[in-house]
Amino acid sequence: MFEAVELGRKVSKEEYEAALPQLRAGLLEAQFALRETRCPVLVLIHGVEGAGKSELLNQLSQWLDIRGMEFHTFGRHTDEERMRPPWWRFWITLPPRGKGAFYLGSWYTNPILTRVLEGGDASAFEGYLTQIRQFERMLALDGAIILKFWLHLSKKDQRRRLEKLEGDKATRWRVTKEDWRRHEAYDTFVRASETAIRETDTGEAPWYLIEAKNARYRDLTVGQTILEVLQARLQNPPAPPPPSLAHAAAAVPGASVTILDRVDLSQKLEDAAYEKRLKELSETLGRLGRDAYEAKRSAVIVFEGWDAAGKGGAIRRLSAALDARSLQVISVAAPTDEEKARHYLWRFWRHIPRSGHITIYDRSWYGRLMVERVEGFARPDEWGRSYAEINDFEQHLVDHGIALVKFFLHISPDEQLARFKERETVPYKRHKITQEDWRNREKWPAYETAINEMVARTSTAHAPWNIIPGNDKRFARVQVLETLVAALKRTLG
Amino acid sequence: MFEAVELGRKVSKEEYEAALPQLRAGLLEAQFALRETRCPVLVLIHGVEGAGKSELLNQLSQWLDIRGMEFHTFGRHTDEERMRPPWWRFWITLPPRGKGAFYLGSWYTNPILTRVLEGGDASAFEGYLTQIRQFERMLALDGAIILKFWLHLSKKDQRRRLEKLEGDKATRWRVTKEDWRRHEAYDTFVRASETAIRETDTGEAPWYLIEAKNARYRDLTVGQTILEVLQARLQNPPAPPPPSLAHAAAAVPGASVTILDRVDLSQKLEDAAYEKRLKELSETLGRLGRDAYEAKRSAVIVFEGWDAAGKGGAIRRLSAALDARSLQVISVAAPTDEEKARHYLWRFWRHIPRSGHITIYDRSWYGRLMVERVEGFARPDEWGRSYAEINDFEQHLVDHGIALVKFFLHISPDEQLARFKERETVPYKRHKITQEDWRNREKWPAYETAINEMVARTSTAHAPWNIIPGNDKRFARVQVLETLVAALKRTLG
Repeated sequence: MFEAVELGRKVSKEEYEAALPQLRAGLLEAQFALRETRCPVLVLIHGVEGAGKSELLNQLSQWLDIRGMEFHTFGRHTDEERMRPPWWRFWITLPPRGKGAFYLGSWYTNPILTRVLEGGDASAFEGYLTQIRQFERMLALDGAIILKFWLHLSKKDQRRRLEKLEGDKATRWRVTKEDWRRHEAYDTFVRASETAIRETDTGEAPWYLIEAKNARYRDLTVGQTILEVLQARLQNPPAPPPPSLAHAAAAVPGASVTILDRVDLSQKLEDAAYEKRLKELSETLGRLGRDAYEAKRSAVIVFEGWDAAGKGGAIRRLSAALDARSLQVISVAAPTDEEKARHYLWRFWRHIPRSGHITIYDRSWYGRLMVERVEGFARPDEWGRSYAEINDFEQHLVDHGIALVKFFLHISPDEQLARFKERETVPYKRHKITQEDWRNREKWPAYETAINEMVARTSTAHAPWNIIPGNDKRFARVQVLETLVAALKRTLG
Repeated sequence: MFEAVELGRKVSKEEYEAALPQLRAGLLEAQFALRETRCPVLVLIHGVEGAGKSELLNQLSQWLDIRGMEFHTFGRHTDEERMRPPWWRFWITLPPRGKGAFYLGSWYTNPILTRVLEGGDASAFEGYLTQIRQFERMLALDGAIILKFWLHLSKKDQRRRLEKLEGDKATRWRVTKEDWRRHEAYDTFVRASETAIRETDTGEAPWYLIEAKNARYRDLTVGQTILEVLQARLQNPPAPPPPSLAHAAAAVPGASVTILDRVDLSQKLEDAAYEKRLKELSETLGRLGRDAYEAKRSAVIVFEGWDAAGKGGAIRRLSAALDARSLQVISVAAPTDEEKARHYLWRFWRHIPRSGHITIYDRSWYGRLMVERVEGFARPDEWGRSYAEINDFEQHLVDHGIALVKFFLHISPDEQLARFKERETVPYKRHKITQEDWRNREKWPAYETAINEMVARTSTAHAPWNIIPGNDKRFARVQVLETLVAALKRTLG
């Protein structure tokens, strides 16, 4: 693979000067035009040591309007990063639509270094490359333009370059023992890199191998490639992909029976029994919360359910039992501007708790599969691919050891009606009911279909749905607490 | 996941009879309309034991015009199958465009059974699921409609069904010890199946979970789903995906230097030295061929190169040295109708040699990246995704232990001109030159660019390109033989 970037391609000083004005004007113009689009741009710069990654980045930052750009470097994990799933630190850096981010080091850095310098396992490496493909594909389908540059130097040229830097007093400090150690590992590094490049070189997130021996050729080629890709995309925005084939809910008799019809809503708890169980469970939960904090295990708790199903009350009972210092409750309403400018999962990744902490989501990423689907806020191709995206997201959490507990609070339409009416008459509850609640209620059957498919596709062995019968609030609250206590016990072993 | 298909959905006899006429008419009509499209249809039927997979298949074969359909069942490997890479047996069953194939068992069968019954390794399982996703995605991008049905029964219902079959004299023979053994493994089986389904449930090749307790509901739902998907696809054929972002060959000075410019075409071999080396190498090759046959190692040898670069002569020298009984030379010209009706790699998979045999491809799948690209026979999105498809294909060969050796015979434009002229004047060579050869010659620079990109993206550690300087035929032939001898020695250890 790399023989094709050891050709001695070069650009003379005159050629360089001649090409520059048009390139710079083009880049600024494209950057400006990009702001009107829904596309974030991610530029990844990788390559062998000594190939001039930082110099290239400096050059690009002079050619572009730096106010529209972000720059990220990734080394080993910081403490903050170690306390979350490995992908968290990349998610939070994702640029908004219409803007760009440059990555010096990225999600490729650690897997390759682990494989090369620490003799990492080949199948773990393959697994990580699969995750990368899925991550990049997800961003690309969401509109992102992803350009990955690999700067290449032959081993001989790498040695020459290190020697030259060492020979000059002004640059000697830049060459470390680590650089020489990596030079020794050149062949292994190149082999692992080849595998990574080959397996992640996709149409939507391609690699560009760049011959880096001649700095002018290197910089000009990277700049020109960015320009040509942006121009092509600005001229021909891709059509949305076809919706998934999966959403033909076959028009067959009997198909209107959903998982919600199987919930026994008649279950009740008397007042005395409720008070007793609530007290016991709250104490147990409080103790488990402390244990989890000390064991640095975190939890993510999701509440979904019909309007007026009792999410608020259940959450209050939970938070009363837990230590407020390690607890965060995220109320998910319409996304902010900042959130809308990114992939819909970004706003949920942001709040993933640190080790030992608990985040409760009052509504969640599942809005994508309920309100956004039913109301048409997301296109069929968009919500259609969310099943897999959400399953992957939850797998990341569970793989990191996070206890993930998902509740759906179910009530009957009659019970909802009674609660709506009560809200309208009881003064301190009146703020809880809006016209929108009444409108949602009319779409009950469409929501039932959506919920049935959601449970079928996202209730997995590692993150099952817990459907809670909610007609009796006391019964529901106790069942929520019991489920959570059991889940935390399992997590804590 | 499976809780959503334990709902007790059923269809009464009357409802069934009422729905049937429209369903059957619709299916026949869709099947007929499908023939005019470029879409092959693959229907996979899987599920737990006792869920009625064969009954369903019988039912579907009555509803459809059986002349347009193929039926495939997959059990354990046959001897013929074991002698080729694992995916070979699926490739050769792929239906032509406009027609359909039903799979009772498929590429999912062995991975799941290995995982469940033989305690297969989790990371091998994950790796296999990744291969499946790539395989299905490749077919879908090529136009295939892939529908995967999973028939579900609860453990209790499975037991009841097995007991019922056993209790009836007429059906007792159908229940085997193996069935009961699998019933015992129900929970493990369902868990592994859930993982497989979740990780391969994509928009382009979705899974449909079907509640199988009520046979009428099961059959009607599958039939109706097939109908609805076909109708949707016939009404809205998806637009071709956008071309890869990767093919912006940056317009930069120096970029016209290609890997071919680095080949030293002045290398020569004198007659006497040539005859001596040819004799030695032929003998060695013959011996290695026999060793490989006995060790059951096969080889795939690819010849590409400019017109008149000497492929034919080199191949003749090879085949003279090898045992004709274990050798097959495939001359790749324009595809046949049967080949055109399938994914372009199908015609190459067909000829993958059995263990111990050797296949020489005189031109190959790389036509996709040269003539089809340059002449526009393939769309940019089509040849653009071929790099990854070809790398995957070759990985399958190499993983199976096949020695894969790829040659590109390079000559200068002047040398080609001289050879063309010779062909025109020498009577017995006149058939070897056509107007097309002259036309191809005019596109030399476009081919150079394509070849450079081809080598950059498909010369991998496991399947490197060997670029052979061909201006001197003797030098080229000897170098081909030397390369091949070295490769066979490596393969035989």
